[in-house]
Formats: sequence, C-alpha cells, structure tokens
Amino acid sequence: MNIAKKVPHKIILPEDKIPQQWYNLRADMTTKPAPMLNPATGEPATVADISPVFCEALAKQELDDTTPYFDIPDEVRDFLAIYRPSPLVRAYELEKALGTPAKIYFKYEGNNTSGSHKLNSAAAQVYYAKQQGLTSLTTETGAGQWGTALSMASAHFGIDLEVYMVKVSYEQKPFRKAVMQTFGAGITASPSDTTSVGRTILAERPGTGGSLGCAISEAVEKAMGTENCRYVLGSVLNQVLLHQSIIGLEAKAAFELIDEYPDIIVGCTGGGSNLGGLIAPFMRDKIQGKHNPTFIAMEPASCPSMTRGRFAYDFCDTGRITPMAKMYTLGCGFIPAPNHAGGLRYHGMSPIISQLYHDGLLDEARGVVQTDVFEAATLFARCETILPAPESAHAIRGAIDEALRCKETGEAKTILFGLTGTGYFDMNAYQSYHNGTMKDYVPTDEELAAGFASLPQLTTSA
Amino acid sequence: MNIAKKVPHKIILPEDKIPQQWYNLRADMTTKPAPMLNPATGEPATVADISPVFCEALAKQELDDTTPYFDIPDEVRDFLAIYRPSPLVRAYELEKALGTPAKIYFKYEGNNTSGSHKLNSAAAQVYYAKQQGLTSLTTETGAGQWGTALSMASAHFGIDLEVYMVKVSYEQKPFRKAVMQTFGAGITASPSDTTSVGRTILAERPGTGGSLGCAISEAVEKAMGTENCRYVLGSVLNQVLLHQSIIGLEAKAAFELIDEYPDIIVGCTGGGSNLGGLIAPFMRDKIQGKHNPTFIAMEPASCPSMTRGRFAYDFCDTGRITPMAKMYTLGCGFIPAPNHAGGLRYHGMSPIISQLYHDGLLDEARGVVQTDVFEAATLFARCETILPAPESAHAIRGAIDEALRCKETGEAKTILFGLTGTGYFDMNAYQSYHNGTMKDYVPTDEELAAGFASLPQLTTSA
Repeated sequence: MNIAKKVPHKIILPEDKIPQQWYNLRADMTTKPAPMLNPATGEPATVADISPVFCEALAKQELDDTTPYFDIPDEVRDFLAIYRPSPLVRAYELEKALGTPAKIYFKYEGNNTSGSHKLNSAAAQVYYAKQQGLTSLTTETGAGQWGTALSMASAHFGIDLEVYMVKVSYEQKPFRKAVMQTFGAGITASPSDTTSVGRTILAERPGTGGSLGCAISEAVEKAMGTENCRYVLGSVLNQVLLHQSIIGLEAKAAFELIDEYPDIIVGCTGGGSNLGGLIAPFMRDKIQGKHNPTFIAMEPASCPSMTRGRFAYDFCDTGRITPMAKMYTLGCGFIPAPNHAGGLRYHGMSPIISQLYHDGLLDEARGVVQTDVFEAATLFARCETILPAPESAHAIRGAIDEALRCKETGEAKTILFGLTGTGYFDMNAYQSYHNGTMKDYVPTDEELAAGFASLPQLTTSA
Repeated sequence: MNIAKKVPHKIILPEDKIPQQWYNLRADMTTKPAPMLNPATGEPATVADISPVFCEALAKQELDDTTPYFDIPDEVRDFLAIYRPSPLVRAYELEKALGTPAKIYFKYEGNNTSGSHKLNSAAAQVYYAKQQGLTSLTTETGAGQWGTALSMASAHFGIDLEVYMVKVSYEQKPFRKAVMQTFGAGITASPSDTTSVGRTILAERPGTGGSLGCAISEAVEKAMGTENCRYVLGSVLNQVLLHQSIIGLEAKAAFELIDEYPDIIVGCTGGGSNLGGLIAPFMRDKIQGKHNPTFIAMEPASCPSMTRGRFAYDFCDTGRITPMAKMYTLGCGFIPAPNHAGGLRYHGMSPIISQLYHDGLLDEARGVVQTDVFEAATLFARCETILPAPESAHAIRGAIDEALRCKETGEAKTILFGLTGTGYFDMNAYQSYHNGTMKDYVPTDEELAAGFASLPQLTTSA
C-alpha cells in the first residue's frame, strides 16, 4: 500500500474550493415541504409568527423555499475555518476487512471539540443572534453534541447560553455537562421544575428520562419568557439543514477533485440535519436528472420515525408550544426507551427529509437495533482508527451492509456515508456492548399507537 | 476579521512538504546524552543488551547518536497519513482575549482518537515489531493517551497488546479502558498481582495509586516472560523522540510557508516526548547558530523532575529492571501525589532533554500548579474551541505567561507551543476545577529527599 499510487486516504479541499454559500435544497424541490402551521390559527406560519422564537435572519431562512443559495457571512466562515474543511476519507482498511469490491468513503465531521457536525449550524445561529443584539440563548440537547457545539459558538461570539439536556443523557453522560461548563454554558436536566411545561411533564411521568421534544418545550418557554433571548435548535429545522449543506457541498467538491461520484449515500437520521446536509447537492443532481445516486437513511429501531411513523402534521415539541410541521413522526408524546444509547431520539423528522422520503427521492429508510450498530462501530474503529459516535455508527452499519451486498454481487460501487462525530462521551454504551449487557429495544405496535394518539387533531395520516 | 487578509487560522502542509524522514537530534548535539548503562555490568548498553526488551530496529534507533535522518517506512507513512499532517494553528482569539502584541501559534496533535501526539511513535513501534514477526506487545500507560494510541496502532497492524495502566488513572478515567478495549487491547491496573514486581510493590505500599515507573516494570517483566513479545514505551526513550520529531519538522515547514520563525517555543514535559519532538529541528538551528529561539519546558509542580530533580543515572522504572539512563530525575522510587490530574507523572526525563537542559540549550524549565494549569485550559478552550488535555494545558499556561510578558514589554514576539492533545477523558479533573475542589500539591523537600534516596549507587549528582 503506497499513498502515492492511489486515491489518498484523505481528500481535503484547498482553500479556493471551500464553499462560500449554503445551498437551500427546497429551492429545487418539485414538491416543497408543507408549510409550518401556526397552531393558534391553523394558518401557515409567517416570519412575524416565528420571530418571537427565532431571531429574524433565521426566521427568514426557515421560511424561504425559493432562494437556492445564501452567502455564508464572513464571521461564520472565519469560525468554520477553525475546524473545516472536514476530510473526505477513503476507508481502505474497512474495505479490506470486509473483502468488498466497493469503494467506501466517509465525510468525517468529528474533528472539533463538540465531536460532531452540529457546530456547523451552531456557528451560524449564534452569529445571527449576536448580530440582532440578543444577549442570551436557550436550547435543548440530547446526546450532548448540539449543546457542546452551541456552548463553543456562544463562547466564541460572546453570548450567554442555557442548555436543557435530556435527563437520560445527562445521567448517561456525566462528562458532557463538564465540557459545556468549560465553555461557560448553564445546564439543566430536562424535564425540570424551571418551566411550567417541565413541571407538568414531571407531574405526569415522575420517573421519565425525558426526550428531545420535552427539552425543546422547556427551552422555548424559557426563551419566550426572557428578555433579549431566543431559542435555537440543532436539527429538524429547514435553517439547520441549510447550514449543514456545507457537508454535502464539501463532499461533492472533494469527489470532483478525484473524479468520482457516489452511487450510494448513507446517513444516520435523528432529526435529519446530518443526512439533509450531506445529501443536499447530490439530491439536486438527482432532481435535475444529472446523476441517480441511491439515498439511504439509517435510524434506530427504538425510535423509528421514518420506518414506522406517520407522515402528518405534528408539534415539534412534547409540550405543544411550537409551530406544527408536516413530517414523519411517532407523535409528539412518544418517548424512546431509556436503554436507547446516544442521540437519534427525536419523535419527528426534518420536513425536507420527510417530503423527499414521501416522494421516493430519498430511496430507503432502515431501522437498526443498537447491538448491530455497536458491532459496526467496533469494526470501524479497529480498521479506521476513529472511535465513532453511536449516532454515526448507524450510518456505518448501513454502509457496511451495502458493501457486503456489493461483495455478494461483485459490484464495485462507490459508497459515501456521513461520519457525524466521535464517541468519547458514549463509553458507557461501548462498555455495555463489550460486556454483553447492552439490550436491544423495538417498540411494540401498542407503544407506537400511544404515540400516534398524541398527534394533534388536524392530523391527516399519509 | 477576514481570513483572506491575514495568515490563515490553520496552516496545513501540502502533501509534497510532508516529512519523509525522522530527524535524530543527537547527531547534531555537541555533548551527546550519556549512554544507557547495563545495570548488571555498569557498562554502556549494547544493541544485544537491550534487544530482549526492544525489537531490533528500535534497539538500533535507541543507541544511534550519529545518523541524522532515518527514512520513515512507507507503511508508517501510510498510517500517519490517516491523521497527519497536523495543523499549525494561529491562536487569534487567544491573542485577542489576552490583549497581547505577541503572535501565538500552536501545533495541534489532538485530531485522532488517541487524543494526542503519542500515536506518532506508536505507529512506528508497532510497525517494527510486526516486521520482526512478534505476536504481542506490552506497555504501560499513565493518563491513557499512550495506551490508546498503541491500541489503535496494534489493531491496525494486527498484533496483540497488554496495557499496564497506572492505577490512579485507571480509576480517574474509567472510560479510557473502554476505548482501549474497543481497539482490542487487554488492560491491567498497575501495580497488579500479575507480575512479581507488581506483587512486591503492592506488598510494600498496599494503597498506592501506582506510577509510570511501576507500570513500566510490570510491562517489561511481562514482555520478557512471554514468547515473541516485546515491551514498548511511549516517552523518555531516544527512539520515541526520534519518531516525534515529525511534530517539529512539520511545524518548521509550516512556518516556512508563512515566512515566520518562532522566538519562543514552549512544550509540556512528562517524559519529554512531545517537547523533544517539537523542538528538534529548531534546536538544530540553535546549535548551528542559524536562529536563537528560547525553549521553555513546562512541568507540573507536583512532579518536578527538571526544576527540582537531580541530573544523575537512574533506572527508568520503579522495579529497577530496565537499563539506567542519565537524566533529570526525582529518583525511581518517587511517586507523585494521587490528586495530581492527568499525565506528566514520570520520575525522570528524556536523556536528550536532560542533556540539553543541563547544557543551557533548553533555556528554562518551569513548574506550575494544576489550578493555574486549568485556568489556562479553560480560557484557551473558550477562545480556541479546543478542549485541551491537562498535560497540554501546562504548555498553554507557559505560552499565556509569555504572551502576557510581551503585553507588558510591548514586544510582538512569535510564540509556538505544542498542544499535545484533547481532554475528553479528563472531565473529572475539569469538574473539580470548576466546582473549586481541585487542590494543588507541591512535594516537600523531605518527600523529594525520600525519592533521591532511591537513586542507584553509582549516581553522580549534577
């Protein structure tokens, strides 16, 4: 093996190829995602409707489905330059271990202290908040990557931050809190008694481990009750997918440098920010008939919004105080089992991803159990020297399964997957996998039915 | 701030500038480090003497003080290409926070799963072991970076590994073990009952938290009693500094790209591998009269081998089974206080670093207490978005102090420091710093005297 004779292990974009604009996939979608609805009126939400929650520039990005490109502000590009461009990596060792003729590439977003791609949107959201003269922000975090990312961006741009952290993650990941504190953020385990929605949920389910939906409710309530404060969210929203398009734009530019194009693109999905960002420019090619890659979304079998959910209007939060979005959802009352490791525990799915899946442009969604995910994670780590996040390992599982299918058929397909981040704060889960105590969990039809019962009245099922 | 108008935040070497050889500083030293001694004979150790412990290629590198350059084998370069070149980063935000006219750069070695520069030597050592047909390796680890690095390299090249982990780190860093296990390594807390030296130490000091010196003894004993097995060490040795020279070579090449040269170079020192690697090519310039940078070694006040130790022959391990090296040492019986966070807990110091310090070429060594170190770490994290390892934060402390001195004098000096790695597994220490329970510790003269009493008989003090 000699690096001079083949595609290098890492493809890193030169400075002049680094994207200067975000790409808004909605502008090129034939069927646009259904509009967000104001729950009070049942009418499509306007910028004025959502401006009490989001800062203005972000509210505009959220609702704009016609502008294809947005300039990345200089200050945001400066911040991104700290850890970007992220490498596109050829997984030679994994290919060898699998004995596959497939070429496996991954876009690696873990080389920053937040340990994930979440920093891409955190940088943008904090910048716009600061520009608007806000003095503080609230947010929720599940696995902790988003909270860490936002803490980092808030420290950089100089704005206060309060993070509502899903209680089960708060307990499973004691050190995530210390990292966020190092960056100066305040942390509250959710549900908490600091908000009325938190107190209500605690009264109804005293032992709950919480959920992203519930933490969102608390963070929104807190933001709306605090002067010069807004709420920011790390996934699901259109604005987040816009900021995350940098992943796909860089990946596509890197493939151009080596004169390749992926046949299969795999990403993990919780709220959809990584998959949405990764596939955006490749999906444009598919919509415009230039290329026909296969897109695969990997989700946990324990929180199967795409594979077992409904395509319906739902609240984005458990407390039912946000606008409603049309998306694949398990119902805003669904809370995944506490033994589910890591993130990807959101009840819904990005409206953009949901629409693409509904229209067959996103080809397939697959639910996988966590022991299969950690098996893939461990093999990947030993081959490629990166300890993956459990979330990312869902995508690894999908890529490995595709590579093994290529081995059966003899096809030398090019597979791209998104490696969203690192698993340094998930060692409890790795330990339970290694010592055999990790359990898989798949919700029963009855449990799902209970979640669907929480869907709002105007719901039309798919 | 616009990245187009100034030195970029990160300088990353293009492929054609990546070093293809390691640099052996000893070849250019006027006064060579004193030879390692065979403790049985008191004579300089030969390749034959040390080959039962080290594999042959490494034994030769260990004793060679005349060959200035060694080719990096292709397989090692391929491995290094997974995570190298590492960036040289301009710490603009830290400069701004300090209000200093100084230009601060750091060479960042944390962008790999081991979280530190240790992987540079692990790759080389495992490669040569595999080449020689060995089937297993043993080693020790303190803070865990070396053990993780060696686990990663062992998984990559396909060789078994048993890690003796200093007990206090084993307990302070529960998740380090899980990471090494993910890469397939076996882990034993040291001192242990698996070796006779471990049993002896346990009998003498039942409650000991262990030390690197003790873990080394156990790993060496285990290797010598196992067929086709050798011992590998992550610091102190000449061969390790040779492999780590890639840090300095890359840094120097990066400075050439931006037409700069550092006035002050700061590194943390435990066994000396990082500082030795970082300064190697710059020290050559100083020896050859081409440049005159100031070199500063930062060590913990709780384990002050350079600032309060003796320049004397000593064993490299607590169990007194290794060859003896002439170095700054606290005595092989010295064990730092258990409340000391992180690594940098070795009783001695690289013979190369020791000789340079003794000769005044390494200008200064400074001992710092850990609360001052974590203060620097926290400021750095908030400015530069990287969560530093406590070890690395010693260097940050030194760089900040130099930058503040420049602020007083108005000098726009160029400061380079080595950021050896990340602190993801040191959150207990960060927590204790944030909640105010972290205590500083400086050994008394009596405690140091007890350590010096453990120096071997032929000792000549400096």
